[in-house]
Amino acid sequence: MTQPTDDPYLVISADCHAGLPNEQYREWLDPDVREAFDESIIARTRQQEMAAQGFLNTDFAEEWNAENEEGLRGGWDGERRDKELSADGVVGEVIFPDADSVTSGASAPFGAGLGSGSDTPPELLLAGATAHNRWLAELCATSPKRRAGIAVVPIIAGVDESVAEIRRAHASGLWGGILIPPMWQPHEPYHHAKYDPIWAVCSELGLPVHVHSGPADKASYGPHIGIYTTEVRFWSGRPLWFLIWSGAFERFPDLRFGVTECGAFWVNDLLWRMDLVYERDHGSQKLGEQLTSDMSMRPSEYFDRNCFIGASNTLRVEMARRYEIGVGNILWGNDFPHPEGTWPHTAEFLAEVFRDIPDDETAAMLGGNAADMYDFDVEALRPLANEFGPTPTQLGQRGPQSQADIEAKWADAKRAGRPWRTGIETWPRAAPAS
Amino acid sequence: MTQPTDDPYLVISADCHAGLPNEQYREWLDPDVREAFDESIIARTRQQEMAAQGFLNTDFAEEWNAENEEGLRGGWDGERRDKELSADGVVGEVIFPDADSVTSGASAPFGAGLGSGSDTPPELLLAGATAHNRWLAELCATSPKRRAGIAVVPIIAGVDESVAEIRRAHASGLWGGILIPPMWQPHEPYHHAKYDPIWAVCSELGLPVHVHSGPADKASYGPHIGIYTTEVRFWSGRPLWFLIWSGAFERFPDLRFGVTECGAFWVNDLLWRMDLVYERDHGSQKLGEQLTSDMSMRPSEYFDRNCFIGASNTLRVEMARRYEIGVGNILWGNDFPHPEGTWPHTAEFLAEVFRDIPDDETAAMLGGNAADMYDFDVEALRPLANEFGPTPTQLGQRGPQSQADIEAKWADAKRAGRPWRTGIETWPRAAPAS
Repeated sequence: MTQPTDDPYLVISADCHAGLPNEQYREWLDPDVREAFDESIIARTRQQEMAAQGFLNTDFAEEWNAENEEGLRGGWDGERRDKELSADGVVGEVIFPDADSVTSGASAPFGAGLGSGSDTPPELLLAGATAHNRWLAELCATSPKRRAGIAVVPIIAGVDESVAEIRRAHASGLWGGILIPPMWQPHEPYHHAKYDPIWAVCSELGLPVHVHSGPADKASYGPHIGIYTTEVRFWSGRPLWFLIWSGAFERFPDLRFGVTECGAFWVNDLLWRMDLVYERDHGSQKLGEQLTSDMSMRPSEYFDRNCFIGASNTLRVEMARRYEIGVGNILWGNDFPHPEGTWPHTAEFLAEVFRDIPDDETAAMLGGNAADMYDFDVEALRPLANEFGPTPTQLGQRGPQSQADIEAKWADAKRAGRPWRTGIETWPRAAPAS
Repeated sequence: MTQPTDDPYLVISADCHAGLPNEQYREWLDPDVREAFDESIIARTRQQEMAAQGFLNTDFAEEWNAENEEGLRGGWDGERRDKELSADGVVGEVIFPDADSVTSGASAPFGAGLGSGSDTPPELLLAGATAHNRWLAELCATSPKRRAGIAVVPIIAGVDESVAEIRRAHASGLWGGILIPPMWQPHEPYHHAKYDPIWAVCSELGLPVHVHSGPADKASYGPHIGIYTTEVRFWSGRPLWFLIWSGAFERFPDLRFGVTECGAFWVNDLLWRMDLVYERDHGSQKLGEQLTSDMSMRPSEYFDRNCFIGASNTLRVEMARRYEIGVGNILWGNDFPHPEGTWPHTAEFLAEVFRDIPDDETAAMLGGNAADMYDFDVEALRPLANEFGPTPTQLGQRGPQSQADIEAKWADAKRAGRPWRTGIETWPRAAPAS
């Protein structure tokens, strides 16, 4: 182990959002859908008013918007955006749609962003996505080294059209990958071969495919929004295991797939259960050959090779489970400019979560993994990191505890790794010598 | 702490199954549905043949059925059943439907058992359930102290009819509670007030309501059975959080609700997430008052008061999480006579899982919790337990390790309890003195 330095970390947020104030998307839309757009704006406003009745904490919304009025303009204003992110310690970002998660005031047209679903005519979904992508490419061009823009691609609305839009958006400068709707209903599920051209073009262009938290089985919840909060990770992350079990990563070994803002805490159990079923544990012996006929590796091996977690505001419990999830699979993000993220107080959150995490692992989760996944130009970003990045001291990683102390703390967990593979239990603690 | 004895544990399986060989249900059905029954038997045979193509390990099925031919008759033969359970160390049982989980050869008529769903006309579902319940009451009568029979009640097929059947089945001697379909689609979700009469009658009669693993979104999986194995716990356990968030346990404080054979390993994370959202953690501050307007307690408090987990074959990882799940909420089961359970090798499984679990907690999870939940006559079962129950020595709980050693091993985890409530982290281990 080399002597640790106190050089600032290079921090990349693998979960940021940008979007124009709703009405301003009009000029980015093809003229033939502008009338439908005007109608959709009226309908959306009505929806928002309804949503605010009981579902939204209006006091919170007012306070949030008042306190951060200037910063929130960074949702669409490039200069302001760089300033806010720098002040938050972030020098690179991956940009998803929909800047306003409180009152939906800056969302891609026709709901083509995070909530993308089948309740919109396909041609409007595609038109809305294209308009957002056009605008986003211009935003990214103002600071191209810092901004990995994600093209919104509602693949359920048409595979051929989507492939064309992926090529167009990529050529226009969106190099962060694509966002697909996590819910395919009522179309074919994502194990269907009809989607193979999507996986093929993204493999060819090196574009990670993403799902992002948002959609869920909302029609079933009635007024009970707590059910939504409990289930949303399932509905938004679900394509992950559909792709793994159906062999998508066997057919497309270069395909990369990310689950963003669904947390990471559930990944260890998911991998554990999938691996054990794959290897026909006691409860799975009755399953036939079809179980594994599309795969040549364990589910966790596909996950390590092809998948990643845009974990956003990582939690302490996720740090505890990181050797099972895979340190290299966790990509932190500040969720700028959403209030459920860490902006504009990222430094405090990081100090709480990373205070006893070894330097190399901190560097990976805060930026290194994202740099590798999205191919950020790290050399170009290094000067910004030196100016704005948090130091180990600022994260509480220095002081009375040495790096050796920190590593010793986690040694048993690291050695255990994925216990279902290694067989090593780290609990309960060893019995005291008697 | 009193000096530990080596008295055998009183073991109750909170997850067993019984069902007649399919054709034999004919005589238990009302005459007016027997013709439909004959047709359904033919259709079911065809379905089974299809299911066997790739989905079923036919070698395993043949071997299992050949090796256990006699014991499997315990699925419907009372005398054989007692003999098998006693030999397995089990003296009391909670009886769900569908004895054959390999080739579906002993399932309640019209699929009214574990797979109960909306693809069957309601009147046939109800008729099939009633036939099974009639037969089960007779099976239970042959050993009434040992057998808590569960009435199958497809409440989606009609609330009034279901209430009547619950009263009839209870009066006929089925005192274990009721099984409802975990999937309500396309009917109203279980937060709907239309189901209140069900919760009311079960509260009145002291009958726990159960969901049991089995149903899932099967239409979406194509040939990829691995997806089913990954999702089935979500679909089968889902009513749990629908009832909690919608205030069912607020309106019916005596209602008890169990999730059986879905494992227990996910419960700690579920409670953690629900509690934090309820208390409006950082990510939930934007949610409106509707979030908690149907509740007066935290989700974990309803869970502790009203809910339980029929955990079946408990796993080591579930032992590690038991203070978060709640030791009192975990009810072990051997899943007799299903091959994914522990019968006929329960002793070996118990020794693996419970080898370092304190006596009092072992006693609770293996039987005491079930005795309390279902009101088994423990005094009547004690002589059987003395004859057949496993001893602490047989579970590896004696020998070099003292009871104090065992308790010391888990002391930190026990002290931490539910860390989201106590704030106590048990990981990483304390840094070594420097």
